[in-house]
Amino acid sequence: MPALITYRTPVQEDWVDYNGHLRDAFYLLIFSYATDALMERIGLDADSRGQSGHSLFTLEAHINYLHEVKLGTEVWVQTQIIGIDRKRAHIYHSLHRNDVEEALAASEQMLLHVDLAGPSSTPFSARTLQALDQIIEQQRDLPTPEHVGRTLRLPNAKTKQ
Amino acid sequence: MPALITYRTPVQEDWVDYNGHLRDAFYLLIFSYATDALMERIGLDADSRGQSGHSLFTLEAHINYLHEVKLGTEVWVQTQIIGIDRKRAHIYHSLHRNDVEEALAASEQMLLHVDLAGPSSTPFSARTLQALDQIIEQQRDLPTPEHVGRTLRLPNAKTKQ
Repeated sequence: MPALITYRTPVQEDWVDYNGHLRDAFYLLIFSYATDALMERIGLDADSRGQSGHSLFTLEAHINYLHEVKLGTEVWVQTQIIGIDRKRAHIYHSLHRNDVEEALAASEQMLLHVDLAGPSSTPFSARTLQALDQIIEQQRDLPTPEHVGRTLRLPNAKTKQ
Repeated sequence: MPALITYRTPVQEDWVDYNGHLRDAFYLLIFSYATDALMERIGLDADSRGQSGHSLFTLEAHINYLHEVKLGTEVWVQTQIIGIDRKRAHIYHSLHRNDVEEALAASEQMLLHVDLAGPSSTPFSARTLQALDQIIEQQRDLPTPEHVGRTLRLPNAKTKQ
């Protein structure tokens, strides 16, 4: 199975800079909407109808910008679950468009399962765990993506480092 | 000298989720505005009056979310230059508010100096380099921040990793 498609959108006018290119923060907004969609899929709906009382908070994210994206371009997000423990999920989003094989951007993220009543971290429910396990099983044959486990470094930097 | 303050803003209505908390992507938008302000300071103005023909593109970013931030909260960004080479700058933004000593979030970023006519990467101009060196000199005694050189990892994760 290919990576799960979690979100599709054209690049909106509010998201581009004066040159008509998607601003860095709005790549992450698209990934944030993809995380919302993933939450719905695993029983963590945030809307008033489906309120589960639980949510995922982003603890940490790493993003690689690989290509510029212009106003109006139709893009989609593919999502892969890299690993989970009792209450955390390590996930990977990549941004794509037609006619470009390589990803436009990639972001790995660490998400924490939270009981909103605290808010405090809490183990995944049986229902959520089952949904996560199902995705992991479907993605078992996908290779580990390229932009996972990255560290920012500037070799031969001038200054004290 | 303390870290340079590059941007101040109250948390806007458009930036919060249904719970009134700053959404993950909008922390990065605040840092993005701080990068714009840093660009102005080093002679890379993006507006029509000061157009230099050069800009900084974000290649890569890592962000740590440390505290929730509510609608209306006054926040500011402090910026530290970790290192530079001929055409890249490794910088560190942290987000702060009154009455909380610890940072609310931190993001290290790798920025590339670009000639917009290409667009293609190009060495910093003498003027920009001088401005960068001045900031580096002023920040010489600041310690390396806590959230630099981080790698996302989930020890004992279930699944193939």
